[in-house]
Amino acid sequence: MRVFGIDCGTEITGFGVVDSDDSGRLSRLVCQTSGAIRLGKTLSASQRLAEVHRILSAELQRWQPEVVAIEEVFYSVNAKSALKLGQVRGVALLAAAQCGLPVAEYAPLSIKSSVVGYGLAKKEQVQFMVARLLSLSALPEPADAADALAIAICHLHTAQTIALQGGPR
Amino acid sequence: MRVFGIDCGTEITGFGVVDSDDSGRLSRLVCQTSGAIRLGKTLSASQRLAEVHRILSAELQRWQPEVVAIEEVFYSVNAKSALKLGQVRGVALLAAAQCGLPVAEYAPLSIKSSVVGYGLAKKEQVQFMVARLLSLSALPEPADAADALAIAICHLHTAQTIALQGGPR
Repeated sequence: MRVFGIDCGTEITGFGVVDSDDSGRLSRLVCQTSGAIRLGKTLSASQRLAEVHRILSAELQRWQPEVVAIEEVFYSVNAKSALKLGQVRGVALLAAAQCGLPVAEYAPLSIKSSVVGYGLAKKEQVQFMVARLLSLSALPEPADAADALAIAICHLHTAQTIALQGGPR
Repeated sequence: MRVFGIDCGTEITGFGVVDSDDSGRLSRLVCQTSGAIRLGKTLSASQRLAEVHRILSAELQRWQPEVVAIEEVFYSVNAKSALKLGQVRGVALLAAAQCGLPVAEYAPLSIKSSVVGYGLAKKEQVQFMVARLLSLSALPEPADAADALAIAICHLHTAQTIALQGGPR
């Protein structure tokens, strides 16, 4: 199974692709790519959204995942931030839908618990554990790319649990 | 000048096209089309966004406006609503950017003042004045379509004022 994780942000949007190799009883996770889209400040809001959409669509086409995993939003942010974040999230969800892909959403606590074993883990702990789970030789940078990989890992852990329980996958 | 107005909503997104005929000293406003996109409840969130994007993109291609006008968001809504509205707004802004169109944003108070002469006007008053300003034989329905026309009219009034003042248009 190949998962495309997206960590939406108003300034930087991270993405990452993780495969799970199901040959053994416990899956081995393999990172195929990770990166981050930084939005130029010289662009208008709509041009920035077009850039995020263009890059995510190209990466989805390139990696042909089976599913897109994305973070559920944390409603403690204020309405102004939520609106801006929603705009980025809207074009990310659109890119997934245009590729005919289902989207799975995970709460921040679930993602951190799944990767670090602790829901309130710090960014550095997430980066460290993502590198370890994917056997990377260096920490994934920027932290937004590591977060996107963490979201993909969370989906694979969840899908794996469901599969071991004999439920639908 | 042809303006494409968009009234983004989480359930219904209105749109409308208004031309200003500059042959006289005061422009005459002509409505070319108006409508509303209702999002089916059987679709997933990402499929709903794809539908809004598909229809808006097709209408922009069909009507070839010079500019897109959209409402600035009212931050009194809660963060959850702002996020959902932001997602719809994101795909609307994207559709404009993909057509290479500039986007003008207007505050709700400015839009109502521009159309009704009173910033706290009710929906029915906006519908009534939009019909009158555009010489329509019936009220534009649904109210979301009338709101989109009002946003386009607000842009034309603003552009006209700037032109009469000799400023940049």
